[in-house]
Amino acid sequence: MPLRPYRMNPLLKEIRHNPVLWLLAFLPVVFVAATLKPEAHTLLFVLSVLAIVPLAALLSHATEAVAAKTGDTVGGLLNATLGNLTELVIALTALRAGQYMLVKASVAGAIVTNTLFLLGASFLLGGLRHHVQEYNRVNARLQTSLLFLATVAMLVPSAVSEADSMAMSAFTQKLSVGLSVLLIAAYGLGLVFSLKTHREFFGGADRSETGETPWPLGLALATLAGVTVLVALVSEVFVESVQQAAATFGMTPAFVGFIVVALVGGAAEMASAFSGARKNRLDLSVGIALGSASQIALFVAPLLVLLSYVIGPAPMNLQFWPGAVVMVLISAMTAFLVTSSGRSAWFVGVLLLMVYLIFAMTLYLLPPRIQ
Amino acid sequence: MPLRPYRMNPLLKEIRHNPVLWLLAFLPVVFVAATLKPEAHTLLFVLSVLAIVPLAALLSHATEAVAAKTGDTVGGLLNATLGNLTELVIALTALRAGQYMLVKASVAGAIVTNTLFLLGASFLLGGLRHHVQEYNRVNARLQTSLLFLATVAMLVPSAVSEADSMAMSAFTQKLSVGLSVLLIAAYGLGLVFSLKTHREFFGGADRSETGETPWPLGLALATLAGVTVLVALVSEVFVESVQQAAATFGMTPAFVGFIVVALVGGAAEMASAFSGARKNRLDLSVGIALGSASQIALFVAPLLVLLSYVIGPAPMNLQFWPGAVVMVLISAMTAFLVTSSGRSAWFVGVLLLMVYLIFAMTLYLLPPRIQ
Amino acid sequence: MPLRPYRMNPLLKEIRHNPVLWLLAFLPVVFVAATLKPEAHTLLFVLSVLAIVPLAALLSHATEAVAAKTGDTVGGLLNATLGNLTELVIALTALRAGQYMLVKASVAGAIVTNTLFLLGASFLLGGLRHHVQEYNRVNARLQTSLLFLATVAMLVPSAVSEADSMAMSAFTQKLSVGLSVLLIAAYGLGLVFSLKTHREFFGGADRSETGETPWPLGLALATLAGVTVLVALVSEVFVESVQQAAATFGMTPAFVGFIVVALVGGAAEMASAFSGARKNRLDLSVGIALGSASQIALFVAPLLVLLSYVIGPAPMNLQFWPGAVVMVLISAMTAFLVTSSGRSAWFVGVLLLMVYLIFAMTLYLLPPRIQ
Repeated sequence: MPLRPYRMNPLLKEIRHNPVLWLLAFLPVVFVAATLKPEAHTLLFVLSVLAIVPLAALLSHATEAVAAKTGDTVGGLLNATLGNLTELVIALTALRAGQYMLVKASVAGAIVTNTLFLLGASFLLGGLRHHVQEYNRVNARLQTSLLFLATVAMLVPSAVSEADSMAMSAFTQKLSVGLSVLLIAAYGLGLVFSLKTHREFFGGADRSETGETPWPLGLALATLAGVTVLVALVSEVFVESVQQAAATFGMTPAFVGFIVVALVGGAAEMASAFSGARKNRLDLSVGIALGSASQIALFVAPLLVLLSYVIGPAPMNLQFWPGAVVMVLISAMTAFLVTSSGRSAWFVGVLLLMVYLIFAMTLYLLPPRIQ
Repeated sequence: MPLRPYRMNPLLKEIRHNPVLWLLAFLPVVFVAATLKPEAHTLLFVLSVLAIVPLAALLSHATEAVAAKTGDTVGGLLNATLGNLTELVIALTALRAGQYMLVKASVAGAIVTNTLFLLGASFLLGGLRHHVQEYNRVNARLQTSLLFLATVAMLVPSAVSEADSMAMSAFTQKLSVGLSVLLIAAYGLGLVFSLKTHREFFGGADRSETGETPWPLGLALATLAGVTVLVALVSEVFVESVQQAAATFGMTPAFVGFIVVALVGGAAEMASAFSGARKNRLDLSVGIALGSASQIALFVAPLLVLLSYVIGPAPMNLQFWPGAVVMVLISAMTAFLVTSSGRSAWFVGVLLLMVYLIFAMTLYLLPPRIQ
Repeated sequence: MPLRPYRMNPLLKEIRHNPVLWLLAFLPVVFVAATLKPEAHTLLFVLSVLAIVPLAALLSHATEAVAAKTGDTVGGLLNATLGNLTELVIALTALRAGQYMLVKASVAGAIVTNTLFLLGASFLLGGLRHHVQEYNRVNARLQTSLLFLATVAMLVPSAVSEADSMAMSAFTQKLSVGLSVLLIAAYGLGLVFSLKTHREFFGGADRSETGETPWPLGLALATLAGVTVLVALVSEVFVESVQQAAATFGMTPAFVGFIVVALVGGAAEMASAFSGARKNRLDLSVGIALGSASQIALFVAPLLVLLSYVIGPAPMNLQFWPGAVVMVLISAMTAFLVTSSGRSAWFVGVLLLMVYLIFAMTLYLLPPRIQ
């Protein structure tokens, strides 16, 4: 097998040079622990978090490697659909387990975390090194507009319907399917707009350029497939243990779904976004932060609603807890407010992080019954 | 009467060249049907819609002809007060019949339809022909600001008052009159601002220029008066039949008031706005769409409240159904968001239309009891 | 005492040239009346208002005099912390008396009054003299962003919590303390940003420059201390009489707290802001209006929450009446909407004042029970 070292080299090299990937060592530990001590929820929770983080990093890297090999349009499309594969797989696992509260909290939390924490920390880290930073505001505007559209889709059904009778439940379900199709269509048209008809306006937001030697296509595809399966397996341990572990740590379920799951799922993207910001390549950071947020809102969430008909124990709807809708709406408005100038300084990052801290603090202190 | 052919010529020429006006043939049919078959609600509904559309087109044309003859300021004033005469006459008919739900739904629906559908379809149609289009954003900003003001006037009374006691009802009624006077004053001052003191900033939004030979003033005034009476007569048939016809078609009353009535009343303006967009004269389209929306919100709606004391069976207030307030607020915010740059491409139109579709879908699926 | 005339001169000169300060004559009258007729609430209310207005003017002048003497950074800091000393002292008096409703109404009212009335009247007065005025929009954007942050902190706890049980009350209390610390930290970092690291962007917003001969430091400090004590004493009369006097005048408590107290407390700042606007120095007006609003929202209000643990009969929380939150949110959005261009004309002022009038009218007509 003389080809093996050649094929494995980039993956091994990646693992050797990226300390995050050393956490892969926890992968076998999770499965052993889950088999031997299925009741040790806190331990399983910690181990599964430690195992998901490097898997997410690998997944993100493999997606970008495939995207880089397949040319601009297909690559952009791949990034746009698989960019949040980790979040999707975790949510699918929770969906199969019928934990719709966790699915919705993690979806809303991922939107909020990407918009406020990821963008805010990028602006802050970039701003501590560079006095004023500029970025392509056309892309920021497109992504915040898409995010705003998704917020409207979340908001209107709750605003219009007040009672909670049988008629309302059927209404919500039918409406959720319709809105999901609409959102996915809007997302698709947004891709046509930014990748095809008006791509000259979006030149700045190049996510795939990481300056490293690209992986061969075969390796990338194999990694993509294999790691997705591994994430799915670990997610099962994670989803089963997260609620009870949270109780042990004194966290509310809302805090866990919104903050912890979102931070775990987005760890890989954070690394890229922060490094881009420090290198004064803010277009990369803004693209990752707002691109991920709009992708989750317009693609992952509606996809979960549609998939719930196939794999869930019962159909899931798009109606979110009012507090979650308010937070997503505030996030979209904040992102619009701070990105309208296309310029950034450290305090803009502080502002975004403060809004995030207000959310996190509120959810952390919230009495458990109300979520 | 040698003058007659000269006087009638423009009107007949208009009818011959404008296929929409051929629908005038339905006008006698409506009245005959209403007399012979007063119980055939569905038929009467369809016939009255078919008759209102060409009348609205004639009304809009006559208004513009009078405006063109009377000079810039008076003309602008005329356009600003009579531009939505069809909507006003339909609403007045519903007001006299005591159908306040329908009046309010059609007012809110006209605002939403103009802001989202008319503007969105203009951007989309224009964008399919032209890569990027520019327009005067000062006018867009003025109109969205006025719209925002009207939204605040709709929102604050509901936000501040929670209970629904006798005291509240008197409070709402007094407040509605006060707010109506405020809104009409704001609208008037906005006209002084855009037509007089700062008109140099609003040069682009010229609604009256249609490139056709103008009608003589006498014909225009006679058409204005005669067609208004006809619209009033047909509206009576329309208002009486709309609710039961809607039930036959399986539409909710909310959907009919919001979407169907608004589309019927605004058909004439749509034709002008869309043709402007395709000819790359987006200022015309933006002016019609946002100008109509702010006119209905700050002039037609408050006028209806004040007139309800004179012609209605009971006074009407400005308090809208919460879902309607949310939709108007979202429309104003969306318009502000997309017009802040003064540039447009096809996807901007898609975004606006998607928000409109979310509303339409929600209202269509809404169980009938809750409106 | 040969130094005395030299030391007193600027204060006496100030009083002689500033007709507002002649109202100081009411100061002894208040104390005499409060002793002789403690039950004459209406009289005491009017007298205390007449006495607070000149004291507020003196306080504002003394703060600026100290700020001018202590250099840019310390001076900016002083202005930023003592700029709303009158409002703070009035609120502290109400806090000690356990009148939390009044404290909260006056805080929210001060934010709304500064953002809408002070800014709106400045734009209008400036615009009546000057066709178009320009100002530094970077400062406006910073202040509106801070205001938006404070609004989020007011909004999220109410949006997230619905029930009103014992658990919720403890939650609200803990959260209020946490949010207060966050807001003060954000305010402090905002000062570092605008006074230190990025001050070159904020050059326009110079509040202290009043074109008069500055007071000596000793006099300024003595005035600051002495007048603060006097304001505290008069506030006591004011707070005790305001509710019953309001009932006599037929005003609702909500109207008094929101509108009357805010206008009384901000009288001094209004004079400076309006004079700046007429002299085409709109940066001064915008700085005072939005700077005061954000200072009250991010510094005065949280400080009151923290101080309530020390001086109040019971801890106060940050949870506002929903109507107040909506008004503050609308104020912040309106300010963002109208200041995004950095240009102003008279109609922009009308728009802001109209929003303020909508609020004032609603509160004035509101049935007393609901506040």
